[in-house]
Amino acid sequence: MKSLRLLFALSLLCSTATFASAQHALVIQTDFGTKDGAVAAMKGIAFGVSPKLPIFDLSQDNTPYDIWEGAYRLKQTAAFWPEGTVFISVIDPGVGTERASVVLKTKSGHYFVGPDNGTWTLVAEELGVAAVRRIDEKTNRRAGSEKSYTFHGRDIYAFVGARLAAGVITYEQVGPLLEPKVISLPYQKPARDGAALVGTIPLIDFHYGNVWSNIPDTLFEGLSPAPQFGDKFTVIIFHDGREKYRGVIPYVRTFGDVKEGEPLLYLNSLLNVAFALNMGSFSEKHGLASGGDWTVRIERVK
Amino acid sequence: MKSLRLLFALSLLCSTATFASAQHALVIQTDFGTKDGAVAAMKGIAFGVSPKLPIFDLSQDNTPYDIWEGAYRLKQTAAFWPEGTVFISVIDPGVGTERASVVLKTKSGHYFVGPDNGTWTLVAEELGVAAVRRIDEKTNRRAGSEKSYTFHGRDIYAFVGARLAAGVITYEQVGPLLEPKVISLPYQKPARDGAALVGTIPLIDFHYGNVWSNIPDTLFEGLSPAPQFGDKFTVIIFHDGREKYRGVIPYVRTFGDVKEGEPLLYLNSLLNVAFALNMGSFSEKHGLASGGDWTVRIERVK
Amino acid sequence: MKSLRLLFALSLLCSTATFASAQHALVIQTDFGTKDGAVAAMKGIAFGVSPKLPIFDLSQDNTPYDIWEGAYRLKQTAAFWPEGTVFISVIDPGVGTERASVVLKTKSGHYFVGPDNGTWTLVAEELGVAAVRRIDEKTNRRAGSEKSYTFHGRDIYAFVGARLAAGVITYEQVGPLLEPKVISLPYQKPARDGAALVGTIPLIDFHYGNVWSNIPDTLFEGLSPAPQFGDKFTVIIFHDGREKYRGVIPYVRTFGDVKEGEPLLYLNSLLNVAFALNMGSFSEKHGLASGGDWTVRIERVK
Repeated sequence: MKSLRLLFALSLLCSTATFASAQHALVIQTDFGTKDGAVAAMKGIAFGVSPKLPIFDLSQDNTPYDIWEGAYRLKQTAAFWPEGTVFISVIDPGVGTERASVVLKTKSGHYFVGPDNGTWTLVAEELGVAAVRRIDEKTNRRAGSEKSYTFHGRDIYAFVGARLAAGVITYEQVGPLLEPKVISLPYQKPARDGAALVGTIPLIDFHYGNVWSNIPDTLFEGLSPAPQFGDKFTVIIFHDGREKYRGVIPYVRTFGDVKEGEPLLYLNSLLNVAFALNMGSFSEKHGLASGGDWTVRIERVK
Repeated sequence: MKSLRLLFALSLLCSTATFASAQHALVIQTDFGTKDGAVAAMKGIAFGVSPKLPIFDLSQDNTPYDIWEGAYRLKQTAAFWPEGTVFISVIDPGVGTERASVVLKTKSGHYFVGPDNGTWTLVAEELGVAAVRRIDEKTNRRAGSEKSYTFHGRDIYAFVGARLAAGVITYEQVGPLLEPKVISLPYQKPARDGAALVGTIPLIDFHYGNVWSNIPDTLFEGLSPAPQFGDKFTVIIFHDGREKYRGVIPYVRTFGDVKEGEPLLYLNSLLNVAFALNMGSFSEKHGLASGGDWTVRIERVK
Repeated sequence: MKSLRLLFALSLLCSTATFASAQHALVIQTDFGTKDGAVAAMKGIAFGVSPKLPIFDLSQDNTPYDIWEGAYRLKQTAAFWPEGTVFISVIDPGVGTERASVVLKTKSGHYFVGPDNGTWTLVAEELGVAAVRRIDEKTNRRAGSEKSYTFHGRDIYAFVGARLAAGVITYEQVGPLLEPKVISLPYQKPARDGAALVGTIPLIDFHYGNVWSNIPDTLFEGLSPAPQFGDKFTVIIFHDGREKYRGVIPYVRTFGDVKEGEPLLYLNSLLNVAFALNMGSFSEKHGLASGGDWTVRIERVK
């Protein structure tokens, strides 16, 4: 009997260890830059909550104050992480003002911690809003941080995000339920316009200069007849409604299908229509940028 | 009895696993940059010491050779990590010369591994010096690295830091005790001067261009009467004693309390007095930088 | 008996936990940059394979498309990680073309996952080729990624690299054996030429501007008589065969052995001959760069 009791205690110990290991990931995005100690301070708080918590960077190099860019980064990444992953996003030009600090839970089972200022626009659309809770700063704030108003990333978001990811608190313990909706940034939704497709340029793939649209493969392949590799498309890109680029570009499977320096239309890693130069920078060559005010129209050449 | 012995062995196994998991974090700062393999080589050595060691970046993007900046990064971060955390800092213009390689233990229970060249100035002041030990390079050096004189970060600091964090060695095993003091960089300590407060500009918050002083909230709030949000301050910033900026700035709770482009005086995330433009760069607009030769004087407008 | 069976089950549980902890590291290199969500998407896939997998960055800031630079980063780092470490390298100008996706196993027991496009040149030479397997994309591809042709880093390499590091698949399960060789980039091997030594400039140590050669300590110290600290060397650096720099530089143990701004010849952290200015940028001052078309010749001044 004694050995059985010991066994039981022991098995509890082991299963506790197993449970503690089954923590979710904490993934952090900010516009703080890496030439700084602020992100490390956030990680210190998170590590203090649970030393076994797996902590990752999304990117700390977001353009300062660019909420749209942050929204797109989350869309580019979130769905590739398992259910239960907790994302913190601190691109927060309104820190200290009355914007709500929330945790969004999506229908996919991902959590998003930060200010409700438009950063959730795209993940809310793509992954679906399951619930939104306001962070109760009385119960979910780092001890001793009451006088600091300007670093919610460290004092609130890292703390509550880590506690949620580590299972120290449940989602319900974050704070009171709000209406299940988030603030959305306006932009041109992808759509069909006669024989053409229209959309926005949500992002330049900076490092290479590739220009991404938000036109998905489903819309693109719904053209009649369905596009074949080698088909040519007239591509027009507008800024504030004024034409900035016009050209005819072949639809190919991959970069190597055209010569160096030649343009191509392809489906990018998010399966959206995109434009590039093989071994060159499409955006730089043509002076293109991204955002809600950049739109695109493509139509097959007959 | 046999089962009890088995149980005992088993419980040892489990508790070993539990113990091994209770490792401290290793946090690394260098001026090597991230466009390089050197930091990854350091992490490889640390991982080789213990595959369960939690390893984090403070920043690898310190300005080359800028010891002051590194000192400030540590201050900005260290206190937010739990007791027992081991920091490695390699900003080491004197690598290979006779400066001592040490491990500083602070009264807060944090460890700092690297050259004693001034990098510990601010954490020593803030967290207190408990002890300083010289690294015994005979016992605490990566095997096979005897011929390499220029990469102590990998061959000595990563190795001894990881062993200390993982509990492979105790602090006593680092090497012989030195006097409990470290090399300190000179700078203007924050102080009261009549009705004014003076200090230095230890850091520009690069990404945003905010200008941080070293004047703490305690000194600031000790003004009589205690500052209220909305109070206006004359701020003068000097470089080498020459005036570089003079203006009147309101003390506010947070950025959103002034209009876009307007200046503000606030308590930053370290609870020191700082100056910023809402949605702009204060340092860039006024051509300001940081270091021991930049000083500041603030005085309330009556 | 029952308790023994329980014990056995329990010990299995514990040993599973122990086994799962004994995962190898996954180390990632790309040219995607950190101002992006692509690397985080790769890590999400890897984390989904095993939440206990230790995941590290080598560098995400490689010069886009620069295979040589990537090859050198691997050489700079790989040997400092334990046997069993899995490296992913995605510098892949030919993504989507017919270059093979492989996993190289070196004689040192390290694994290298990515396109066989020259990236393995230097680790293959240094660590030795044990075997090369083509990745079977039918069994080793992220579910749902069949339509994406441009992001093998996420859909194939992160997935198979994580499964290999976590022990989910064996090396044999990667795919069919190829011939045990990889594609090699051409470059000037280090060699003796009379009383001189010749080699290439494989890398500029960007952050500091130090110029690295590929001439190893063994060749250097084989000069007769063996070089002593203080010996002076005539150093000539060529680009495409044309002289770009000529100077006389002392061989010293470390940077601090010459005055600030003075040049030095030293053995770098890979124990290769290198050139630097103490507290300055040798490459910038003399307009030097790196690559297969940059060569160097050194000869002792008598």
